[in-house]
Amino acid sequence: MSADSVRPVPAAEVGRWDDEADVVVVGLGCAGASAALEAAEAGARVVVLERASAGGGASAMAGGSIYLGGGTPVQEACGFTDTAEDMFRFLMAACGPDADEVKVREYCDGSLEHFDWLVAHGVPFKGSYHEAPVYEVLTDDGLQLSGGETAWPFSTVAPPVPRGHCPQVEQRSGVKLMEALIDALAATDARTCTDTTVQRLVVDADRRVVGVVARHYGDELAIRARGGVVLTAGGFSFNDEMVRQHAPWLDDPRCFKLGTDGDDGRGIRMAQAVGAAVRHMDSAEVSCPAPPHVLMPSLLVNAAGQRFINEDVYHGRAGQAAVFRQDKDVFLVLDLATYEANPSFLKITWAAETVAELEDDMGLPEGSLQATVELYNRHAVKGEDPLFHKAPEWARPLEPPFGAIDLRGGIYGVFTLGGLHTLPTGQVLDLDGGPVEGLYAAGRTTSGIPARGYVSGISLGDGTFFGRRAGRHAAGVGAGAGS
Amino acid sequence: MSADSVRPVPAAEVGRWDDEADVVVVGLGCAGASAALEAAEAGARVVVLERASAGGGASAMAGGSIYLGGGTPVQEACGFTDTAEDMFRFLMAACGPDADEVKVREYCDGSLEHFDWLVAHGVPFKGSYHEAPVYEVLTDDGLQLSGGETAWPFSTVAPPVPRGHCPQVEQRSGVKLMEALIDALAATDARTCTDTTVQRLVVDADRRVVGVVARHYGDELAIRARGGVVLTAGGFSFNDEMVRQHAPWLDDPRCFKLGTDGDDGRGIRMAQAVGAAVRHMDSAEVSCPAPPHVLMPSLLVNAAGQRFINEDVYHGRAGQAAVFRQDKDVFLVLDLATYEANPSFLKITWAAETVAELEDDMGLPEGSLQATVELYNRHAVKGEDPLFHKAPEWARPLEPPFGAIDLRGGIYGVFTLGGLHTLPTGQVLDLDGGPVEGLYAAGRTTSGIPARGYVSGISLGDGTFFGRRAGRHAAGVGAGAGS
Repeated sequence: MSADSVRPVPAAEVGRWDDEADVVVVGLGCAGASAALEAAEAGARVVVLERASAGGGASAMAGGSIYLGGGTPVQEACGFTDTAEDMFRFLMAACGPDADEVKVREYCDGSLEHFDWLVAHGVPFKGSYHEAPVYEVLTDDGLQLSGGETAWPFSTVAPPVPRGHCPQVEQRSGVKLMEALIDALAATDARTCTDTTVQRLVVDADRRVVGVVARHYGDELAIRARGGVVLTAGGFSFNDEMVRQHAPWLDDPRCFKLGTDGDDGRGIRMAQAVGAAVRHMDSAEVSCPAPPHVLMPSLLVNAAGQRFINEDVYHGRAGQAAVFRQDKDVFLVLDLATYEANPSFLKITWAAETVAELEDDMGLPEGSLQATVELYNRHAVKGEDPLFHKAPEWARPLEPPFGAIDLRGGIYGVFTLGGLHTLPTGQVLDLDGGPVEGLYAAGRTTSGIPARGYVSGISLGDGTFFGRRAGRHAAGVGAGAGS
Repeated sequence: MSADSVRPVPAAEVGRWDDEADVVVVGLGCAGASAALEAAEAGARVVVLERASAGGGASAMAGGSIYLGGGTPVQEACGFTDTAEDMFRFLMAACGPDADEVKVREYCDGSLEHFDWLVAHGVPFKGSYHEAPVYEVLTDDGLQLSGGETAWPFSTVAPPVPRGHCPQVEQRSGVKLMEALIDALAATDARTCTDTTVQRLVVDADRRVVGVVARHYGDELAIRARGGVVLTAGGFSFNDEMVRQHAPWLDDPRCFKLGTDGDDGRGIRMAQAVGAAVRHMDSAEVSCPAPPHVLMPSLLVNAAGQRFINEDVYHGRAGQAAVFRQDKDVFLVLDLATYEANPSFLKITWAAETVAELEDDMGLPEGSLQATVELYNRHAVKGEDPLFHKAPEWARPLEPPFGAIDLRGGIYGVFTLGGLHTLPTGQVLDLDGGPVEGLYAAGRTTSGIPARGYVSGISLGDGTFFGRRAGRHAAGVGAGAGS
């Protein structure tokens, strides 16, 4: 049996259990911490197995907003009105097609309670709105627009309100979230074993998952799970073979994998090896490198010199369009006055007095970019964009001189969204659509709220939310618990 | 256990075997027939289980060209020069990204031998070229261009030659192929059981596949496979739940599923339930309804009035672009003289003297279609299309009066391409990348030559080719056999 094997170990072959618990949690990111907290607080004996030398995982590297709504205290303090229904309508649109309606509904209906739970577990939020739109809030403000709610077509689906809740810290706040949850966990009876990599699930003769086999340095440990194993081991961005099999567009040096080495898909594969089903394995969050918000009057164009999306859309949607639909052959075209007035990390590649010259410098087909800019300007003088519905505030004509930025070598921040098929309880489903007894999962090991589309804050959101449910259910509290 | 369950049956639970064979083939389409023929001719006792009342499956419904090359007798009779290397370069480009290089190489290198094998098994080919490009040859001609070899960018990859080999019959020729293979099979000792639906695999204590459980009317039968089970049970187009999980774009009434009810994904799910891996589950062939070849001077435009592909590309590639990249919001724009001179199944939706009027009638943004036609015409007067590289013979300016055909309700012929991960021997691979002992697959139950892109004739091609290999290997002839 190679060390890479995920083939399940028959319980009969386990000579002795090195350790045991009611609930064994695999991975200590936000989903694992939440699962462990809920299970421990429900009275279960919990052990958390983390392959790194400390908890945090990809969650601690995240920008850190948590997508919550329905009228949280932070939203109210900032003067925004929100409802679970508006949040539901937005998320179904933004995370589809084929967003899981039952999960999205529970997530929205439970959002206020979840906010309170986070606060009660030491995650602080300041009641202040970060008005300047940025990818990641680096002040201690508590609220941001994080999902492109103001951009077409989502602005037509529900009243746009900010739902990105940022833990109060003057830096990327994923680390703050994880510090708080790990501190809260330390106050429970749950035990955490670091440097411990789970390698295979243990199944009994009835195919029930009853434990795991893990490696701790040179030792192989068998750990029994009386209630259940909760897989919160991240996605598969760092498994090249899985990426090629399921999402080959990401197998490209221009796609910078966000996450940790631990996102090697092993959690997904171990579950599949005991019969679990997966969903949406080709899905990915793909953050577009441009335009930054200050350069929103710019045009994103493709290799035919055509626009292809409203540039003010959520950067993850622009990224998906660039990568899935335009083969990454994209440029940013703007006027130099806008560029110079709004310093950003982007540097101009070409500059020219006329669009014709610029087009020629860029190597675009003769007349293509000229037609694009002429048509765009014709409507933009009226603040309109009938082709792609950029918001009026950004639909402004480009004036000479012009510039363009070559994004063909651009770096997209990516991670996988496909994973195990689960119930809202966290129960992992098999190919018959029934639960794999004893097996739970949450976070990016699963296909969660972001089925195909994405909004910032939804991974920390659905990871913590459904991690809690998985922990409670594995602890025997039952399906309805926590909601 | 519900009738829909694919959970494997432990061999210990099989009271008695109702039947047994060396090789059990599941499904009698082109892959199953080829597998059964090879296994039987290698001396194995073979039983074929077919859920319908007769063999044929989706293969018998196919247009019927078989993608073969490298200088077949038919290609030579028609005056075309081809090499295995050119065929390899073309297929790697057309079937990618992530086409399986080892499978494509074997397929191209073995193409001449495979042609001879088909002929030896009663599949007749006439040495005549069907020059008029059509989706399906309805004369008895033996050769057609079937994969868009002459269109950019594939024309730049290898010299374009026709490789669509059509069995000699004056109708869609899939039925001719299947008649020949089933007749050949009848001349062997292989037995075929129709009206027999395989429901679950039987595995021994070492997880080796040792048989199947099938339903024949009211009876449940256990059938032992001493050498191996070969799954050739089609794709999953007709399983709505699987389509939503893996390829939700096809879950649309505008996508007409090609195949039979038997393409319910059960072959894939039964194998997954014993630990098999899958690949490219989101992939699909998507045949675009337009333009037909006679209307190739037309323009395909999207909801922003923009062109998005060279219209003369393989119709499956245009269809993928329309469905995956343009959300099916597409139109065909042409001049009325071309329309009237070339009757087809398409009917004009709008007609107008000017592009401005047409654009308005179509509800496109003001100026959008005008910019598109103006730019296209500017280059087309020189026979050029620098944006999308339509071939010079079709790049002709549109002249007034103009017409447009609304394709937004258009019907795309679709079927799934994702499936089991297999070796060229037909051995099904598990999540560790090693073979599932005793389990083989071929045809659209697998991810085969068409990983993501498609060419007409490649399903009958790789189904028969790798079906043969699976049959030989299951019969114990060994990995290198047949190549």
